Amino acid sequence: MISQTEQVRAMTDGTNTQFDAIEALTGKPIAAYSVSTLDDVAAACAAADAAFDAYRATDAEARATFLEAIGEEIVALGDALLQTAHRESGLPLARLTGERGRTVGQLKLFADVVRAGLWRQVRLDSALPDRAPLPRSDLRMRMIPLGPVAVFGASNFPLAFSTAGGDTAAAFAAGCPVVVKGHPAHPGTDAMVAGAIRAAAARTGMPDGVFGHVRGPSNDLGTALVQDPRIAAVGFTGSRRGGLALVQLAQGRPVPIPVYAEMSSINPVVLMPAALAARGAALGTAFVGSLTMGSGQFCTNPGLVLAIEGEGFDAFVDSAVAAMTGHDPQPMLTGGIREAFATGTAALAANPAVTQVAAGLEGDGIAREMARLFTTDASAFLADAALGEEVFGASSLVIRCRDLDEVKQVLRSLEGQLTATIQLDADDHAAAAELVPLLERKVGRILVNGWPTGVEVSHAMVHGGPFPATSDGRSTSVGSLAIDRFLRPVCYQDLPASLLPADVRDGAAGPKLVDGTPA
Amino acid sequence: MISQTEQVRAMTDGTNTQFDAIEALTGKPIAAYSVSTLDDVAAACAAADAAFDAYRATDAEARATFLEAIGEEIVALGDALLQTAHRESGLPLARLTGERGRTVGQLKLFADVVRAGLWRQVRLDSALPDRAPLPRSDLRMRMIPLGPVAVFGASNFPLAFSTAGGDTAAAFAAGCPVVVKGHPAHPGTDAMVAGAIRAAAARTGMPDGVFGHVRGPSNDLGTALVQDPRIAAVGFTGSRRGGLALVQLAQGRPVPIPVYAEMSSINPVVLMPAALAARGAALGTAFVGSLTMGSGQFCTNPGLVLAIEGEGFDAFVDSAVAAMTGHDPQPMLTGGIREAFATGTAALAANPAVTQVAAGLEGDGIAREMARLFTTDASAFLADAALGEEVFGASSLVIRCRDLDEVKQVLRSLEGQLTATIQLDADDHAAAAELVPLLERKVGRILVNGWPTGVEVSHAMVHGGPFPATSDGRSTSVGSLAIDRFLRPVCYQDLPASLLPADVRDGAAGPKLVDGTPA
Repeated sequence: MISQTEQVRAMTDGTNTQFDAIEALTGKPIAAYSVSTLDDVAAACAAADAAFDAYRATDAEARATFLEAIGEEIVALGDALLQTAHRESGLPLARLTGERGRTVGQLKLFADVVRAGLWRQVRLDSALPDRAPLPRSDLRMRMIPLGPVAVFGASNFPLAFSTAGGDTAAAFAAGCPVVVKGHPAHPGTDAMVAGAIRAAAARTGMPDGVFGHVRGPSNDLGTALVQDPRIAAVGFTGSRRGGLALVQLAQGRPVPIPVYAEMSSINPVVLMPAALAARGAALGTAFVGSLTMGSGQFCTNPGLVLAIEGEGFDAFVDSAVAAMTGHDPQPMLTGGIREAFATGTAALAANPAVTQVAAGLEGDGIAREMARLFTTDASAFLADAALGEEVFGASSLVIRCRDLDEVKQVLRSLEGQLTATIQLDADDHAAAAELVPLLERKVGRILVNGWPTGVEVSHAMVHGGPFPATSDGRSTSVGSLAIDRFLRPVCYQDLPASLLPADVRDGAAGPKLVDGTPA
Repeated sequence: MISQTEQVRAMTDGTNTQFDAIEALTGKPIAAYSVSTLDDVAAACAAADAAFDAYRATDAEARATFLEAIGEEIVALGDALLQTAHRESGLPLARLTGERGRTVGQLKLFADVVRAGLWRQVRLDSALPDRAPLPRSDLRMRMIPLGPVAVFGASNFPLAFSTAGGDTAAAFAAGCPVVVKGHPAHPGTDAMVAGAIRAAAARTGMPDGVFGHVRGPSNDLGTALVQDPRIAAVGFTGSRRGGLALVQLAQGRPVPIPVYAEMSSINPVVLMPAALAARGAALGTAFVGSLTMGSGQFCTNPGLVLAIEGEGFDAFVDSAVAAMTGHDPQPMLTGGIREAFATGTAALAANPAVTQVAAGLEGDGIAREMARLFTTDASAFLADAALGEEVFGASSLVIRCRDLDEVKQVLRSLEGQLTATIQLDADDHAAAAELVPLLERKVGRILVNGWPTGVEVSHAMVHGGPFPATSDGRSTSVGSLAIDRFLRPVCYQDLPASLLPADVRDGAAGPKLVDGTPA
């Protein structure tokens, strides 16, 4: 992914009071938007902090209703939202329609999660007044929200991972007010969705300040937001450089705070020998389909393919080359992303150990960029760490391996990843069983006989992974488990009933552990 | 708490190949112990890494049996272990007997946790092959261990929070090999317990390298341990300076890793007006009992008391003064801790805004140190951040507040704490209800009508809290929830049964969420 600065570097010199939305397909300005000031950041954080106690005290039904209302308000924006997102991102309307469904579905999922109440992790340990040598107190535990959360959206999901996207939904569900730094690549979309959240908050009686919003192309706003002492956690999806910069800011605060940054992944795909022999050509076609979808602008795009030389290998490469050769170039999200893609693919093409085996049709020099396919061998890959760096877009590198040991060696050499995929047939199971423990240590999600693009929003999903796929591999940014990122435990010892939070009182509804046993 | 360096600064210049165990009560050497080398650190980390896949593949019963066997081997060390710990720490035998029970109980608790299997957090989302527009894959999630964990024990719990203490037990339970940096203040105790762990590992057939152990007085060993690329997480209990140094090392690695450091807390106690009026004198006596127990060398020692001037206030102070005045000085753990206590209390005594109202009997200049009690008022406390710093040992500061608003102001000014305590009677409930939400944002555990010393090892316990009480307020270092610190989620998408880990196969025993519902 690409930093926000790169995406908007042509828009403003940072001192302007306005910045332009850019039409992705033409590179021309659409409309001007006001730039937030540092005072706006401080005011949003102060309001979020002031709202925190009232918001976290809302009951499950009220909070769930708020989440659902955000979805309703987004749907009520109708086609105008899709048209705006389409102009700003260049993403097709059909894709954006699906993404809107995912966004609304995600809000609904978190509403269900809030109602079900497992996230509170209530634990009750009974008092043992007669225990010797010492009695045991009455102990009750629950999770409480961390505090106001700063959310930085992603350019590649202007709806599902931006203003009212996964991080915002999870933080609201946890009971945290949210201050969004709107993504400057889609300010019109951002403004409309921010309005939807405000309308939902007003309609459902949420406290003022539960949602704050600032925007602008300069990094200064984001810096001030992360450094504000009232912010308790950060959610971010974007470039490795951008994510690491936020981590450093958060760690340098007098009171450090957690940053959940989803940053960088090349998502290795392993083609096992029997699968390759049985369906090499079909794999090649399907691979290019996954690689080029949405101009390859997915965090889980298959940027690396490992295959053992042998039967089916040439058929795989030939069919991938054929599929890519006539491929129509697709628009990219921003000029900055397009330029970074051009630079990254040019560096691969210039690498003497790498062969460019296919390219799509020429781009238009404005928005559309041609897809690229490269090959190298395992020893060259192992010798050059640059070959393992993400090129965001429809570019992939096929690594020719001599045997399974070389596949393992390459996999072991990789940094942390969001996903790894194994294409296999029945005869590959024994060998693939050796890869699973190795991949568990490298990635957040292992797939068989699929392609990594397409992330289900559900309970068992993990969209996360060891560093640098994310800054905190102990979590996921997609799926219901994402709520855990914004919680921490508190224990109540011997509190009289009137002082106990309702969640942990005797007879409170909801799941709990009583003396360690689910009840 | 005090850094390891300070504790042992008289022992060695860092280039020695041996260092001495020091008898706490006399300051004299007991026995010499070999110093580990940097090669020893690397070898232990390599062995831990090599053992990781085999150890994490052990089933619940095998891993639980290993944990229980450690406890059995510790008990089998008999009185010799208690005698050694007593000589090295100066802690009374009765206390150490209790602490041994806690240590063994803690290992047993984690054995039960491993068997119960909730920690795996298994989630299964059913495939929906006929869903439109896109089918849903079969998704299965479980928690896996992070990898080898480095554990730095605490000097003040030579058994329960050292070599086979809470961090070690939780990491082993999670499936992580452990490399312990033995605490140099109790090397004999450390060596015996390390031997017990090795014996248990051998007896229960655990892989070589599941437990590694290095020791020595220099910080270089700890630095190398945290920087070793094979270490995946760090558990630490000790000083703020020491903890922050480890956090910085861990964040500066090419691949940053989580550090769970339990560091610094002054554990405010609020005396509400009705309680003070009804039983001020009794509270004063009980307070000094909690403050001076074990020479005040507890992470949860009540270092700060907030009380509203009024009926009972003078009775509280008078009885606390009376209780402390004749108090026998107790031995401290190390010369370094004793010196830091003397420095910290001298600084308080010299502060013009602070009055020393009581002191225990004189110390012996070697190990025993007199307890101290100070008073100040809220405005002075709010004006001088130094008054909120921890003085590790039997020293506390009583803050005279004008009203409940001033109590709140002081509480809001505090850094993150492990605990907060409210002493209240029925007439205080309404006012105390205003304090609970405020305290939730500051601490990991809220107590009513007790004293913070004494931490139950159970399911609902939280021994944690916002920075700087710990470096990661999202967790606890005591109780069964502590296992979560060493886990991360992995999702398996469409894996054939033969490739799935046993935990997530169809029909696997154990608790799980199926499509979001407990099953």
